Amino acid sequence: MAGLDELIHQPVRLRIMAALVTPTSGRAEFTSLRDLLALTDGNLGAHLRKLEEAGYVVTRKAFVARKPRTYVEATEGGRRAFADHVAALADILAGP
Amino acid sequence: MAGLDELIHQPVRLRIMAALVTPTSGRAEFTSLRDLLALTDGNLGAHLRKLEEAGYVVTRKAFVARKPRTYVEATEGGRRAFADHVAALADILAGP
Repeated sequence: MAGLDELIHQPVRLRIMAALVTPTSGRAEFTSLRDLLALTDGNLGAHLRKLEEAGYVVTRKAFVARKPRTYVEATEGGRRAFADHVAALADILAGP
Repeated sequence: MAGLDELIHQPVRLRIMAALVTPTSGRAEFTSLRDLLALTDGNLGAHLRKLEEAGYVVTRKAFVARKPRTYVEATEGGRRAFADHVAALADILAGP
């Protein structure tokens, strides 16, 4: 289907991308994202890998008070793909 | 994922439902729907069967100038499910 990005359309990934690209958000911590979306570590990790392979997100590890934390961020390409996907959705939902 | 209707979320079915429930549309002829969405008879038929099994659409056959025509229409339940799905999408797209 023209315009819809099947990778982003998948419900869990749609939520992940929305959580990362809305103006009020941005970089998210892995554990916060996991809790927000009520996912397991494994499930979130698998979806993030797919998004990372597509170049839509990047993950970075950092140490805070000697504890490792993983941060997830949408790339410019990911933001653009998400915006295009939302525009395609709006177009479909408006009807023929 | 709470709120999203996986049956409707599938891209082809999302377009079918949008084509059937928007105020400017309504009942659609099978062949018009097939051409509008650039699908084969078999592909459209398979998606319509799934929507029909869920009670979201009904198909009716009628004869026009002795030729059989198939009409597709969204049910009240289908319209409600679509509206709920769109609301859930809007909620997700607004971000956390």
